[in-house]
Formats: sequence, C-alpha cells, structure tokens
Amino acid sequence: MKKICLIPLFLLGFCLLALAEAASPKYVFLFIGDGMSVPQRSIAEEFSKQIGRGPLVINSFPMQALTRTSSADALITDSAAAATAIACGEKTKNGQLGVSADLSQKLYSCAVKAHEDGKKVGIITSVTINHATPAGFYAHQPSRGLLYRIGLDLIDSGFEFFGGGGFSGQHDKTDDEMYKGNLYDLAQQAGYTLARSRDALNALAPDTPKTLALYGEGALPYAIDDNPNAPTLAEFTRKCVEILSHENPQGFFMMVEGGAIDYRGHANDAAGNLREVLAFDDAVKVAVEFAAQHPGQTLIVTTGDHETGGMTMGFANAGYGLNLLLLAQQKCTPETFDGKLAKAKASKADFSLADAEALLHENFGFLFNEESKGNKMYINAEERRELEKAFQEEKGSLGTVAKRILQNKAGIGWSSGNHTALPVLTTATGCGAERFSGFLENTDISHRMKELL
Amino acid sequence: MKKICLIPLFLLGFCLLALAEAASPKYVFLFIGDGMSVPQRSIAEEFSKQIGRGPLVINSFPMQALTRTSSADALITDSAAAATAIACGEKTKNGQLGVSADLSQKLYSCAVKAHEDGKKVGIITSVTINHATPAGFYAHQPSRGLLYRIGLDLIDSGFEFFGGGGFSGQHDKTDDEMYKGNLYDLAQQAGYTLARSRDALNALAPDTPKTLALYGEGALPYAIDDNPNAPTLAEFTRKCVEILSHENPQGFFMMVEGGAIDYRGHANDAAGNLREVLAFDDAVKVAVEFAAQHPGQTLIVTTGDHETGGMTMGFANAGYGLNLLLLAQQKCTPETFDGKLAKAKASKADFSLADAEALLHENFGFLFNEESKGNKMYINAEERRELEKAFQEEKGSLGTVAKRILQNKAGIGWSSGNHTALPVLTTATGCGAERFSGFLENTDISHRMKELL
Repeated sequence: MKKICLIPLFLLGFCLLALAEAASPKYVFLFIGDGMSVPQRSIAEEFSKQIGRGPLVINSFPMQALTRTSSADALITDSAAAATAIACGEKTKNGQLGVSADLSQKLYSCAVKAHEDGKKVGIITSVTINHATPAGFYAHQPSRGLLYRIGLDLIDSGFEFFGGGGFSGQHDKTDDEMYKGNLYDLAQQAGYTLARSRDALNALAPDTPKTLALYGEGALPYAIDDNPNAPTLAEFTRKCVEILSHENPQGFFMMVEGGAIDYRGHANDAAGNLREVLAFDDAVKVAVEFAAQHPGQTLIVTTGDHETGGMTMGFANAGYGLNLLLLAQQKCTPETFDGKLAKAKASKADFSLADAEALLHENFGFLFNEESKGNKMYINAEERRELEKAFQEEKGSLGTVAKRILQNKAGIGWSSGNHTALPVLTTATGCGAERFSGFLENTDISHRMKELL
Repeated sequence: MKKICLIPLFLLGFCLLALAEAASPKYVFLFIGDGMSVPQRSIAEEFSKQIGRGPLVINSFPMQALTRTSSADALITDSAAAATAIACGEKTKNGQLGVSADLSQKLYSCAVKAHEDGKKVGIITSVTINHATPAGFYAHQPSRGLLYRIGLDLIDSGFEFFGGGGFSGQHDKTDDEMYKGNLYDLAQQAGYTLARSRDALNALAPDTPKTLALYGEGALPYAIDDNPNAPTLAEFTRKCVEILSHENPQGFFMMVEGGAIDYRGHANDAAGNLREVLAFDDAVKVAVEFAAQHPGQTLIVTTGDHETGGMTMGFANAGYGLNLLLLAQQKCTPETFDGKLAKAKASKADFSLADAEALLHENFGFLFNEESKGNKMYINAEERRELEKAFQEEKGSLGTVAKRILQNKAGIGWSSGNHTALPVLTTATGCGAERFSGFLENTDISHRMKELL
C-alpha cells in the first residue's frame, strides 16, 4: 500500500522537475518600448485595427503586469535609471547607467549574466547604440552623457551583436582623457565586423562571430518617414536572430529597444508615435515567429521604460469623439515636413500660402475648400489663422502646428513634453512567462530574467 | 500494473474536481471605479504611500487584466453602455441600459443570474442609486435619462440591498405615463425597509429582508469634503455584507461603485479624484476582511468602466517633477470652496482680495508672502493674476482656478472634461481570480462572472 501511495509523489516530483526544466528558456527576448505605456500601446492598437493591420502582437501575450517606473531619486524616471533598473535590477538616480545610486558599485545586467552563462547576446535599438536604454545592458557610467566611455564599455562587453543607429556624439576626436581612438576602429580591432548599411546588414554571414551593424550617425530614420535606405527594427531583429541562433546550443538573450517611440512622445507627435509602436510590434513578430519554431524554449517579454508626453485617448475639443484613422493622413514627422517646406520655399521665389496649403494637404490631408465643410479634415477659420501665423513665422513651425491641429481632430491630447510617472505594461509569453504577472517594480524584470537564465 | 497506473489518473481527476469546486465562489464582490483607469489608480497609490496610508488594496491583487471599454457605437464609452457591458456581457450603444444595441432585446446582468441561482444581491454606489452604473445591473431602458422607469426597474429587481445616494431626478411628480407614485413609497409597498440616514443605516438589523439605504437626494457628499453626517462607501459595504451574509447558505453577489471618481474626473479635480479612489479602496478593504474570514469561498474583482479626464502623471510646466503630496493641501472641492467664499463675502461687506487669500491659504495651502518664495506652495505673479481675475469674477471661479494652479504645481495634467478610451485595469483575488488575466473586453467580466456563479 505504501509503495502505491508513493507513485503519485514520484510523479508529482517528476512533473515539478519537468516544469522547472521547461521554465528555463533557451532563447530570451526582451523588447523595451522607450516612452511606451498603456496609452501608446492602446492608441497604436486601435489605429492598427482600423487600417486593417489587426491587433498588436505585444498586446496579445497571455501574461501582463503593470510595472512601476520610479527611479532612486524621482517618481518620474529618465531612461538611464530605468534601463539600469530593468537590466540590472537596482534603482539608481536619474542620469546614471549601470552603477548604484551612490555610485559606489558597478551593477551587472541580465545580459551580462546570460553572457557569462554561455549564451550569445544581442542588443538592438532604433536610436543610437550608446543611448541610455541599450547602454543599461552593457555600460557602467555615472552619467549617460559620457557617450565615448559608453562606447568603450560596449566594445568591452564582447556581446555578439549590436544593431541600430550609429554611435552618437563622441565616437571620435573627443578630448575625453579616456580617448583611445575612433570607436568604430576600436570595435574592429576587438574583432567586430562592421555593417554600416542595409545591404551590409543583409549580407552578414550567419557565422559572423561579433557584429556591429550600425546605420548612419544618429537614430534610425523615423518609421513614419519611411526611408527605404535604412534597415527597420524588424530587419535588425531578424538578422540578429539568424546569427545568434546559428549552431548555438547555449541559446541567446536579445534586448530590442523601440527607442524612437520616446522621441515622438517628447515631440507630442501622435502619428509619428504610433508608427514607431507599429515598427516595434513588427520586430516582436520576428521573435514570435522564432518562438513558434522553438516551442517551449523561448521567452518573449515586452515592456516600456516609462511613459512620455502624458498621451491621452480623448481631447477636450473632440468631446467623446476619437477619430484615430485621421492620423493616417500624416505622411511624415513635423520636422520632415518643415524640411520639405523650406526646400519648396527655396525653389520658388513667390512661394505663397496657397502653395503651403497644397503641401499641407499632401502631408496632413487637410481640406481648405469651402465645399469640404463638414468633413473632419476641413480646416476652419481658427485653424487657418494658426496655420497662417506659422507660415508667416510668427508662432510655431508650420509642421508642428499642423501636427497639433491634426491630432486634436483625431482626439489625442498630451500634458507634457517630458516623461511621466504612469506605470508601464509588461506582457510576456512562452517559457517562464507566468513570472510576469501582478504589479511589478521595473527592477523585478531583471530579477525574473536572472532567475530564469 | 494497470491498476497502479490508474491511481495517478484518479488522483488527477480528483484534483481537477476539487479545483472546479474551489473555482465556484460562494461570495462575489465586483467593485467598479467609475472613471477609474491606470492613472487614477496610480496617482491615488503614490499619494496614499506618501501620506503614510500605504499602497492601495485594489492594486495589490495577484491577477490583473487590462480591459477595453469601447461601446457598440464608439471607442469612448459612456457609463450606461459600459455598465451594460460589464453587467450583461454585451456591448450596447452609449446611453442605453440593459438592452441590446438595436433595442430589440432585454439583457440580463450577472446580478440577475446570481439572484435566480438563489444568491442574495447588493448594489451600492457613491452616487445616485438610479445612475447608469448601478442601473446596468437591474434596469432595461433605452435611455439612462429615464430615471423614474429605472427606479421602477430597481423595485422590480427584488434585490436584497441597495445603498448609496437617493433616487435622482424623477422619483416623484413625474409626467411619465408610467408614473405610479413616489419611488420610496412604492419600494416600501414592495417590502423594502428604508434607511435614509447614517443612523438608520447603522441601526438596520442583520435579518432585514430587503433594504433601501439611500442617503439624501443626490450623490453622497464627496470624500474630500469629509461630511460627518453621510455614511461612507465602506460603511454601506460593511452593512450590506452584514445583512447579506446573515444566515445565508447560498452566498451573495455585491456590486459596489465608486461613482464619484468619475465626477471628480469630469471636474478635472485631482485632489478630489484621488480622495474618491481612497474611499473606494476603503470599501474594498471591507471585502478583503470578509474574504479573510471566508477563505477559498470569496472572489473580489475590481475594475473601472472607463477613464475620465485624460488624467496624467506629469505636467508640462512641472518638467520631471511630480509633487503629489501638495494635493494634501486641498481641503474641499472647488465647488465647496466657492460656496465658502460666497458665504464669507455675504457676511462681510468689505470682503477683500486679502480675505480671499486667507481663505485660499486655508483650503489650498497657498503661500502669498514674499518670504515663501522658493516654497512650492508660493503663488507667483502670474498665478496671483489668475486668482485675482477669478476673484474679480472676470475669468473662472476662484475655486476652479485655485484647484488648477495647485494640481499643476503637483504635476497633474488633464486633456479632457469627458471620458477617454484608455483601457481600464481589472484586478482580482480569491476563488476564480485566475480567470481575470490577459487583455479583456469589458464584456468578458460579465462572461467570467456568469461562468463562475
């Protein structure tokens, strides 16, 4: 009798062991939307459904956890403190990267832990590769502004893949006492293969040991500007997966940042913002496809580092209306529009308000003719005055004013040009995803990752 | 051998049965914060921690699910369509209550299902008892404005307990063709015991069969106004629990609405809003205490019906600062302040700006003396001009302007006086709570409830 009773216990033990085994993912993806919280996810989702693209993959994951973002010294975090918390599991002060709040200790990220455990590591971003969020995974600096030193830390990391926008700021000719030479040269000397264009990225062999795939000298072009020369976040992610999964029994850890979501939040540019979220979602789709080919071995986590802009899904003047589809009319960022305008002005001596209106129609879908009265895109007298003032260079740039008019018609509001303290949403799917539930601190993401790795 | 192998299967079957049993809660609490989404929960939470009250109970539950709130005809729902969705599980058009979008069918709520199954039912709100959210659980009307008919539906429901603010609008002398008499009289004739004061509420015997505990003729006084005569939402909840759990083998279903959270959202009044969330949280604490005494038998779910106001945790002028503790300085709603001001003006012939400043200091903590420069509560020249204009009755009421100045100092922004489409957060704990995870539609709450009941 006793023997029989033990069998379920043995079985239970076996099941628990099997579960523990299953809960240690071989392949780990961490996707961070910079400046992406619930409003950004939700606005992009509703827009995506309306244009027929369907719901966001990032919002479809079975586990979710609201995540508090405060830093060691403020309820509203910056990206450096947030990246340190998410990557290293400890709150530090705003502006600090991979070091403790009192600067006394270096902090090590889950990427470093994965690397020590024999996993390959990839770090990808849509902004510059030595920007705060990616740097949180490899750098240890008292200030996020020490861009050259962050670049040196990148090379020291030995991580297998870096992708995104080129080194910002001081990759060369810096008077930093640490200066040892151009960062690209130093990276090559350390064994990194450089790929500085879309073609070079695509041409990378799957057995490339260490890769620095950096496009241009700044952030990648904005998704809404649709630059065909630049690789997308999804393309970087696909190539990274290809290289890191090549003949690799140990698996990998990848961090992919949608960094420009934040930039479009600071600019209070709803159309630009949601296009960045969609580009981010496209990159997550690459991971979901990979997970489907490696069932039970892959964990995918998405989160944000903070909210940016105090973005809302309802605007005073729009009442209960929310016409997100209007945002599809915006064809470029306001800055790009202002560039087009300057070019058009330069090429035509008598460039008039009517010419500007034609350009506005083309890029923001505005309707100026009286017959369009009643159409949501019709520009009323007050809006016309605002646009005219901007055209006359009295108040605001024309692109900025046009963007504001469009998104107010769509029903989007913003309360700030800075970050806010709204918690972000963490979602997870796959092996170990159940650990990402309930309310979390941003530091918990690192703790959970380290436990699982 | 075969016999031995069957044992774990039997055990598994037994376990599954036990789980299924456990997943049917005897006692169900559904708490709805009207106009409460992630910003409202988060601002109240951070404030609560800063005043030493600790984190919110509603945010501590292990399961959470972001919940989409759109109605049948709009991304931005009203409370009637939202209540119908949450209660009855079907999307209807804005303004409609307990009827299908095309008005062809009556819809029945999880409260009605619970009642049919022999459970006792309690409906509580901090606003009027025939307001949209409570009405979604018992009424069937093409318009939320048909207040008298909604009152008749309330009486017809036969639910055991109603608590909150008195019938609004047409409880008497209506020219509605359905008019049958004063609603309170009709309720008494139908066997309801009336309790129209705090003392009467407290004096109710636990074996009262049917109770109508309604304070006043409108919504309950606002939490921030701290009226000692009115019962709190927690007091209503405690009495309801006492009565519904009295010698009741079948258990109960209770819906408790924090209805005034929405009102303070429409008013863009951050301090008033967060005090309502705290009062709501106090009511949830009553349920948590009850659950502790009835382990494994109780389910508590909290949600919102929509967001109100486009409330944000960061304001343009405040940069990265968020000084929520400043909101503790506000001692009443702006409307109550304006009442105090009118009274003070009426009682003093030469009531001056200096007198108004003294009143502002008392109720909003503003500092006007030069020595206070540098203190966050110091009123600068621009703010002083705004207050003076309001005092002179040139622009805005003084209470409204003071409230805006205070909350901008605190770092709170708003984008609308209406509802927004931001998803709300559903949290759950106890028996069956695991069904409230991932992304939900508001209708899913009703489906899950009905499955569990």
